[in-house]
Amino acid sequence: MNAIEKILNACINNKHICVGLDTDIKKIPKFLFSEDNPILKFNKTIIDSTAEYAGAYKLNFAFYEKDGPQGLETLKQTIDYIPKDILVIGDAKRGDIGNTSEMYAKAVFDNFNCDSITLNPYMGYDSIQPFLEYKNKISFILVLTSNTGSNNFEKLITKNGKYVFQEVMEKINIWNTNSNCGIVFGATNPNELKENISNMKNLFVLLPGIGAQGGDLESIVGIFHEANHNNFLLNISRALIYADSTENFGRTAKQVIIDYNKTINKILE
Amino acid sequence: MNAIEKILNACINNKHICVGLDTDIKKIPKFLFSEDNPILKFNKTIIDSTAEYAGAYKLNFAFYEKDGPQGLETLKQTIDYIPKDILVIGDAKRGDIGNTSEMYAKAVFDNFNCDSITLNPYMGYDSIQPFLEYKNKISFILVLTSNTGSNNFEKLITKNGKYVFQEVMEKINIWNTNSNCGIVFGATNPNELKENISNMKNLFVLLPGIGAQGGDLESIVGIFHEANHNNFLLNISRALIYADSTENFGRTAKQVIIDYNKTINKILE
Repeated sequence: MNAIEKILNACINNKHICVGLDTDIKKIPKFLFSEDNPILKFNKTIIDSTAEYAGAYKLNFAFYEKDGPQGLETLKQTIDYIPKDILVIGDAKRGDIGNTSEMYAKAVFDNFNCDSITLNPYMGYDSIQPFLEYKNKISFILVLTSNTGSNNFEKLITKNGKYVFQEVMEKINIWNTNSNCGIVFGATNPNELKENISNMKNLFVLLPGIGAQGGDLESIVGIFHEANHNNFLLNISRALIYADSTENFGRTAKQVIIDYNKTINKILE
Repeated sequence: MNAIEKILNACINNKHICVGLDTDIKKIPKFLFSEDNPILKFNKTIIDSTAEYAGAYKLNFAFYEKDGPQGLETLKQTIDYIPKDILVIGDAKRGDIGNTSEMYAKAVFDNFNCDSITLNPYMGYDSIQPFLEYKNKISFILVLTSNTGSNNFEKLITKNGKYVFQEVMEKINIWNTNSNCGIVFGATNPNELKENISNMKNLFVLLPGIGAQGGDLESIVGIFHEANHNNFLLNISRALIYADSTENFGRTAKQVIIDYNKTINKILE
């Protein structure tokens, strides 16, 4: 299964939750500290508990890079452990001049074997293009992020009367000739989603901002349903993986994702 | 010496060349392949040959990440080998939501021991702020890049009649309360530099685009001289480290940087 098949398969089965493995040693259950590699053990338990219900796993590279080469080993081992029919998103937010972006594409797609990556569009087309060359991988490009800083530049208004993020989305639609583009669109404000969903066309949509960041799950899913746009993933990280700090954290994570799926399916059916 | 002292020291001594260690196994001299770690050996030779003349070293993380955890070891060993009085720029172009940017700051400043980092501003202030908290490190934030894609979004015109990149630079000046901000500004078009240099105030300026990318060294240096802005670094990568593919590549690199310094000093004196 390639990345496109994996995401389509997940979404058609109404598995819209992307589990964010943003694993922080300070936040995992203390009893894991006796393990050789507590972070890897934590990730494996979360994967074992949620794989049946997850649409994707997203690993934010920062959480692993901060531990240096050893952290990157844990990242790789975690990715290798994820069942091969589930989409793996390397949340790396990369982007550089063309010949350098080629290297990043190799790093994330070939070396870490991710199905998909997140990209920063600031530097424009030639910073994105080397990733799009991987026709069986998905590139989720930042459009509107869920943080307060999105006001600084993403929401600058251009002389065309559009937000910068809207200009970015327009360009992504043009660049999407291989049908392997996705976007990152913050789920913190349902109105923004509503106003922009008609321009998301056949882009895959990854939405951070639900869960710990407070986005309104039901409104968001309702908007996708109404727009008949089914290829979306809602990322849940802290609210799922740290829902329980006892030895039962795996079982609790499983219950949390089942509950999310129920809520979502009620709206979509 | 902290990062600020290192860059000020380099610039006051008219060492404005930043050596870009964008080391690619396909481009290094073939005779190095008999070494245990050809890339590390290449980097050490370049450093030995140029340290006396270099204002900084810049390592683009992509070139090392593409080799996975082992590549990151080479990156770390290279950084450790650079003399402690010379600025090390981790060219990582990072940027993420606040709690994640904290992790990237730890990775690049603490774990890889870089003096400085390059950052992507798209996500706004809270994606940059965790890096600025490191008061003795320098954050070079992308303003105008040297690639063709800079036309896509960096040069969108806002309703204020400014380019997006100019709005970014204005904000960086506001954020620069610890005097530890720098900017990346492409050196491919001297006119653009001339039009914007008065807004660079007390920002450190890192300029890619000279050398293989074809920027006009003499015009660029002349503009800084005229503006009485001395805190700038010109990155040279391919045109310096790959100037010679024989066993003499170290000696040739030394001659190249000496020649650049001569050209620059002639203009500045």
